[in-house]
Amino acid sequence: MRYLADFEPGQLFTAGPVEVTQEEVIAFASRYDPQPFHTDPVAAEDSFFKGLASSGWMTAALTMRLFAESGLAVAGGLIGRDVELHWPRPTYPGDMLRAETEVLEVIPSRSRPDRGMIRVRTTTLNQRDEVAQTMLCRMLVPARPSQG
Amino acid sequence: MRYLADFEPGQLFTAGPVEVTQEEVIAFASRYDPQPFHTDPVAAEDSFFKGLASSGWMTAALTMRLFAESGLAVAGGLIGRDVELHWPRPTYPGDMLRAETEVLEVIPSRSRPDRGMIRVRTTTLNQRDEVAQTMLCRMLVPARPSQG
Repeated sequence: MRYLADFEPGQLFTAGPVEVTQEEVIAFASRYDPQPFHTDPVAAEDSFFKGLASSGWMTAALTMRLFAESGLAVAGGLIGRDVELHWPRPTYPGDMLRAETEVLEVIPSRSRPDRGMIRVRTTTLNQRDEVAQTMLCRMLVPARPSQG
Repeated sequence: MRYLADFEPGQLFTAGPVEVTQEEVIAFASRYDPQPFHTDPVAAEDSFFKGLASSGWMTAALTMRLFAESGLAVAGGLIGRDVELHWPRPTYPGDMLRAETEVLEVIPSRSRPDRGMIRVRTTTLNQRDEVAQTMLCRMLVPARPSQG
């Protein structure tokens, strides 16, 4: 497991691919983003997306899964404080997504010597190497316990 | 349905509550955020969260559902370009979440007269009126078609 001192800017972590299936796109959106362009392949043809598209929140959720599989292995778990998401293009059934995470910054806490934060950028790419999502995230990371 | 000219800063839209159930917390996390504090009530007791907590991505997904139900009714659907999420505290099974969305800004496109964006802030509150999540989002909104 990694503690704050084990991270440095430039470290890279990758995972994937995972396939986006029509079944999962429709199931996810039916519960969390019930709009015809995410749930109805026929109605979606006449939408902004010109076909059934994944909810951006499903793209984000799949990215979280890839992120969890990508070997950051933060001690205590991956705990996000805040994120910025950008979806430059839609994700469609059949797309194969992979995630590339780069550590941008390591930020010790001024008030709490037992923890800090890292800032990472996770880029979600499809099978054409197009960017489906970018995520900037600040995560809590514990300092290595002192040997006491 | 609302077009760009139908929005103005200060408009409010609300929805909810929706209950966060342990069954859904575990099912969501098992697929999208497989970490013990989201999937295993016993292991979660010794975690940062001191008990089974919702994945932030499930809180975000439930907020999207509330957002879709809150009557913004953007013509062509709710299409986000980018979002900022902040989770000031965990969400636990049994919590009842509601969403309050305020229109912050209406931004016509300089290059495309047929569309623009609105910037909104959606605050997700639990049954104790505590903020579980804030979301700042820029969304695509079409201009009203001209009568030609």
